[in-house]
Amino acid sequence: MQEKLEKFKQLIAQVVDLGRAEALLGWDQLTYMPRGGAEDRGNILETVAGLSHEMFTSKEMGDLLTELAPYVDTLDPDSDDACLIKRTAHDYEKSTKVPTEWVAEFARVTTLGQIAWEEAKAADDFEVFRPHLEKVMELRRAYADFFKPYDHVYDPLLDDFEPGMKTSEVKAIFDALRPQQVRLLKEIAAKPVIDDSFLHIPYEEQGQWDFGVDVITRFGYDWNRGRQDKSVHPFTTGFGIDDVRITTRFDPERAASALFSTMHEAGHAMYEQGVSKTLRRTPLANGASMAVHESQSRMWENLVGRSKAFWQFFYPRLVKQFPAQLGNVSQEQFYRGINKVEPSLIRVEADEATYNLHIMLRLELEIALMEGSLQVGDLPQVWNRKMEEYLGVVPPTNREGVLQDVHWSGGMMGYFPTYALGNLVSAQLWEKIHLDIPNLEKQISEGKFEDLLHWLRLNIHQHGAKFEPQVLVKRVTGSTIQPEPYIRYLRGKYSEIYNL
Amino acid sequence: MQEKLEKFKQLIAQVVDLGRAEALLGWDQLTYMPRGGAEDRGNILETVAGLSHEMFTSKEMGDLLTELAPYVDTLDPDSDDACLIKRTAHDYEKSTKVPTEWVAEFARVTTLGQIAWEEAKAADDFEVFRPHLEKVMELRRAYADFFKPYDHVYDPLLDDFEPGMKTSEVKAIFDALRPQQVRLLKEIAAKPVIDDSFLHIPYEEQGQWDFGVDVITRFGYDWNRGRQDKSVHPFTTGFGIDDVRITTRFDPERAASALFSTMHEAGHAMYEQGVSKTLRRTPLANGASMAVHESQSRMWENLVGRSKAFWQFFYPRLVKQFPAQLGNVSQEQFYRGINKVEPSLIRVEADEATYNLHIMLRLELEIALMEGSLQVGDLPQVWNRKMEEYLGVVPPTNREGVLQDVHWSGGMMGYFPTYALGNLVSAQLWEKIHLDIPNLEKQISEGKFEDLLHWLRLNIHQHGAKFEPQVLVKRVTGSTIQPEPYIRYLRGKYSEIYNL
Repeated sequence: MQEKLEKFKQLIAQVVDLGRAEALLGWDQLTYMPRGGAEDRGNILETVAGLSHEMFTSKEMGDLLTELAPYVDTLDPDSDDACLIKRTAHDYEKSTKVPTEWVAEFARVTTLGQIAWEEAKAADDFEVFRPHLEKVMELRRAYADFFKPYDHVYDPLLDDFEPGMKTSEVKAIFDALRPQQVRLLKEIAAKPVIDDSFLHIPYEEQGQWDFGVDVITRFGYDWNRGRQDKSVHPFTTGFGIDDVRITTRFDPERAASALFSTMHEAGHAMYEQGVSKTLRRTPLANGASMAVHESQSRMWENLVGRSKAFWQFFYPRLVKQFPAQLGNVSQEQFYRGINKVEPSLIRVEADEATYNLHIMLRLELEIALMEGSLQVGDLPQVWNRKMEEYLGVVPPTNREGVLQDVHWSGGMMGYFPTYALGNLVSAQLWEKIHLDIPNLEKQISEGKFEDLLHWLRLNIHQHGAKFEPQVLVKRVTGSTIQPEPYIRYLRGKYSEIYNL
Repeated sequence: MQEKLEKFKQLIAQVVDLGRAEALLGWDQLTYMPRGGAEDRGNILETVAGLSHEMFTSKEMGDLLTELAPYVDTLDPDSDDACLIKRTAHDYEKSTKVPTEWVAEFARVTTLGQIAWEEAKAADDFEVFRPHLEKVMELRRAYADFFKPYDHVYDPLLDDFEPGMKTSEVKAIFDALRPQQVRLLKEIAAKPVIDDSFLHIPYEEQGQWDFGVDVITRFGYDWNRGRQDKSVHPFTTGFGIDDVRITTRFDPERAASALFSTMHEAGHAMYEQGVSKTLRRTPLANGASMAVHESQSRMWENLVGRSKAFWQFFYPRLVKQFPAQLGNVSQEQFYRGINKVEPSLIRVEADEATYNLHIMLRLELEIALMEGSLQVGDLPQVWNRKMEEYLGVVPPTNREGVLQDVHWSGGMMGYFPTYALGNLVSAQLWEKIHLDIPNLEKQISEGKFEDLLHWLRLNIHQHGAKFEPQVLVKRVTGSTIQPEPYIRYLRGKYSEIYNL
């Protein structure tokens, strides 16, 4: 059996290696590749991805997993080996249940879908996109059916991003969250608008870069095992535990955007840098799920980066970097400015108090589309009604409404809820961290993050993808994902800022 | 047969794609990879290289090549398809004749060999390296024997870099070249030493970068299909015809080094950028051989870049960039300075008049080692004797002598002669180009390179690796590689500079 295990590990290591090569091809494409390289790059990526898929779904892999299945029961269920075999078997089963024809058709339809979406968005014409989205939904329902029996038709999609999680769980969480978050927003909306005009004047790029680097260096981002480059959209990617890179972008008139995005990506990257070295070259050298990943990025961006304690230490440094822009802005004014709440149309520009509402809206629509209780043609109308209901604003155009996100055109259903779940997990962990590190606020106000990072390494990072998200959150906090900590966090913070 | 051909092309395209992925992994390793990434990178590279080798030497590939062999005879021998099948069959045969055990043993021995060489060089102790080189030579002789019958034991090694070329041809060329080059050098050595002290003062990096970019942009290096980055040793690498990148390095006290190296690498890169698009995703999207590749880099670096006409246009621009360093240096002084001849110990620092002598020495030793007429233990002594004979200088240490180059420790026998052959080819092409573009000097003196690049595209670049080097050179110049044009070039140039 030891021999089989070694053979399995060797094979999965090669699959992981190919995935890493793919990641580097992608990173380069988005950072340094000259324009002309696109055609060749597409071919190379297709070949590498194809070989990786072929290897992963090979008969050899299937046989090894079958042979190793009884062996798992003899192992400590929390051991690296047990987790590796179980997780690989789960992914293998998902991969092999989907016929090659479906994969090819899906690739074709979503490629055309993304082109149509771009056109539709540019022309503000939902009808251009509608037939494509209908086809995508058809394929997504067919996809779910490969995994019958299921509790809910949305489950197989959710499972792709949150292994083991059920639609019913997410619904229950969001049902508890929604009314409270809507109520909070109404209370805030009744208060005077905060002035954040000082954030919308030019900040020179090098200063933004330097300040961001200073912040994440203090966080504990390891530059010996990572680097930062520029790209059109910020992202994090890794080519092994010891090479996890982030990117950022600069908009001179929106300095806060680059700064918080740098903290966000560093949060993702520190997670992957913190995975135990024993998981090297396995699929477990990764985050537990999208939500847990997002909990790390959001924690550093929001719970740390938008806190009073954080700016107690960093604001004087920021003013020193940008005296012309901030010399006359008090720390309190700045703090309120970066935490300004304003119901808006666009998800990616949403603040902490409104963000989850954008997500819940999308999840409800995705579920209804999958269930068949909502027709694609009715989407714009339902979208706008829900926007009014949750956020109190109605998009004047579909471009600022149902057409704003790329996800659906690429068939990425099941992904949106992970953003909101990530917020919830971040707050749930945050409460536990405060119990374990009582003087955390003080440490943060002194620019010290060692204890926080150590806690995250110990409780979250080192495990990589060994545990399903709900299992991990329960191990650490004592309960599965709950909405209350996030609501408590929001209410506490905004009560003070807005005098609720 | 058309179906078989398509299948073959698909398979070889995937092998090429994997090679391109490997190249990107290598580029990143030498430019941007954080230090910590080394272990993971080694694994990824091993997996990708292994799969590529497996695919290339697969039974499927062998069967397809066997089936396509008779088909080749029905094709125009100069057609892309005929060349592709022939070249692939040649490489396949070479790859499959070498047993896996030899490959593994060679990898092991040369890895240890390189470590030992570094130690030996640092300690200036040839004895540390000797047993490793003995083992390398043993393996290299075994390698040659896989290709029996051969005319000469060195032939299979040479063929790895110069397909189709024989040791006897190279020997004949070098035997004609050596006495003439030694004589020229003696004449120069009798003349007063040229002052080039202005090249050995600080030149700021950004100015060096900008000037180099200006030069190669005018050469015709296509930035839409390439880019330049920094690395410890300059190199050129490509990820497709439309993404060929160069690197450079800067030494503030040796400005000429970066400048000429940039031109050199751009010469390599323009070659690959100029390959016909019909050869995309084939092994023919490459140079014809190392020597032909080197002919391109040397042409732009030396025949163009160290010429009087070139500096007629560029020197005023360089002075404008570096007025403090060059304001009091005349164009003539500068031209003589960058063409100063000085017999020296180190190959990579050698000038045009001495460079080939370093190479001939190495080739003679390699051949003698392969023939068994020279023992590894006697190398230092023979090295020093030949240095005295050819260059008139004797290394005071082995570090500056037989231990200077990395090549042998990695088993790279057969590579050195390509450097000198490249010089010869560059001059041979240059004479033909002057016949076809009579006012070339004038164009260069006006900073115009379109006609030159067009000529190279048409006669050399577009063909990629379709033809063996000797075939290509003969097609273009009417004869195989000859030493005379290079001697004529050197004598013409240095007669004027040194008043011979």
